[in-house]
Amino acid sequence: MIATLLQHRSIRKYKQTPIEERVLNVILESAVSASNTGNMQVYSVIVTKEEKLKKQLWEAHFKQNMVLQAPVLLTFCADINRFHHWCKLRGATPSYDNFLWFFNASIDALLAAQNATIAAEAFGLGICYLGTTTYMADKIVEILKLPQGVLPITTLTLGYPDETPELTDRLPLESVIHNETYHQYSDQEIEKFYKEKENSPQTASLLQINQLENLAKIFTEKRYTLKDNLYFSKQFLKVIENQGFMKNE
Amino acid sequence: MIATLLQHRSIRKYKQTPIEERVLNVILESAVSASNTGNMQVYSVIVTKEEKLKKQLWEAHFKQNMVLQAPVLLTFCADINRFHHWCKLRGATPSYDNFLWFFNASIDALLAAQNATIAAEAFGLGICYLGTTTYMADKIVEILKLPQGVLPITTLTLGYPDETPELTDRLPLESVIHNETYHQYSDQEIEKFYKEKENSPQTASLLQINQLENLAKIFTEKRYTLKDNLYFSKQFLKVIENQGFMKNE
Repeated sequence: MIATLLQHRSIRKYKQTPIEERVLNVILESAVSASNTGNMQVYSVIVTKEEKLKKQLWEAHFKQNMVLQAPVLLTFCADINRFHHWCKLRGATPSYDNFLWFFNASIDALLAAQNATIAAEAFGLGICYLGTTTYMADKIVEILKLPQGVLPITTLTLGYPDETPELTDRLPLESVIHNETYHQYSDQEIEKFYKEKENSPQTASLLQINQLENLAKIFTEKRYTLKDNLYFSKQFLKVIENQGFMKNE
Repeated sequence: MIATLLQHRSIRKYKQTPIEERVLNVILESAVSASNTGNMQVYSVIVTKEEKLKKQLWEAHFKQNMVLQAPVLLTFCADINRFHHWCKLRGATPSYDNFLWFFNASIDALLAAQNATIAAEAFGLGICYLGTTTYMADKIVEILKLPQGVLPITTLTLGYPDETPELTDRLPLESVIHNETYHQYSDQEIEKFYKEKENSPQTASLLQINQLENLAKIFTEKRYTLKDNLYFSKQFLKVIENQGFMKNE
């Protein structure tokens, strides 16, 4: 159990072996067993297998190969639509179309996604999270026909692994954990915590390919630039509003 | 493994038994093994055990008893402070102080929290998520001395269970899962999906206590009211901005 957690690696190449319905069902049951806000279950999971839809999602997700290759895509959505519908049938006036519930519903969707991940890995399946879900939320809303009150939060690609990548490095545990209250870092501590990552062969190879002087600049100048960060911040806020989660007055 | 996932229940009463350092360490190692955005690890975990601090957090978390009782509190935070600090030491100009990275960092923090949950339960410990973390984020920022770029996202109470509650009911799986694209619900489907929950003995008892005609109204008129939802939406947005995650222009 603990070994499954500690040996997690994202899988980006999949075999064509389909996922048995029974297995997928246990993965989804595990997902909905996670904690959720007030047991209101304000989330939905879209299971996509059709080639045509997967191709559309692949285009939305920056054409990452694994999206086409994986036999199953799971899109986890914040969903107040179902709950509002029920309230209205009961003569109750629901008010979950605001930022607080965007975030509560996102928490629910993400805890469910991580439970699905652990269950999948326990079955020998592999997953990869698609951060592009929020970047391209407007396209995904269209493709998956998400109505008002439903917003994509994250996506898992799911399938039997066709690669066995190394474990990804992590910062030393002490750099992420704080005892009692937050410990503000000194320059010396930051130097120490990032040393191993900066001196790894992977980093050396990245610096060579990108022709940049250090790893930090690969993040700020190549991977996640100011221009993109501002653009996608505004885009995501717009979709949150369009899908009906910003009635804060 | 799967059994641990399927048998999750939130624990709100704890024994005074302390948690062994070795066990806590494996729980935290499991937390940081979860997927995270770009392997940037833009989150931190605050481990709080001191009685004085726990008392302050208990007050912030609406004085829920379990907060005082649990030997350990884990506050999972979005954290771009560490990453920005590193970038600046390397002459790179970081731009993760916007809404996109508020959300990416929240995803990271939540996946880590759910991994900690599963690891804790594998050790026979119990947890409860505190949704009050975002409601009272400003107070928690103060108590845990969170600097600019750090924002509390969720909290776990952690300890050996002193109760064995029943499994909480869930909506039928088919109501949360959609095949291929989103399936808009008919009134009849909503009636069917909520029937068991509405007819349970727990609901009967809640209706009796609250003197309300149906379960939906307990949510809208008692638990999560319009007034509170609007108030806490605005509060949380304000703290997100104050902590430096809203520089979207």
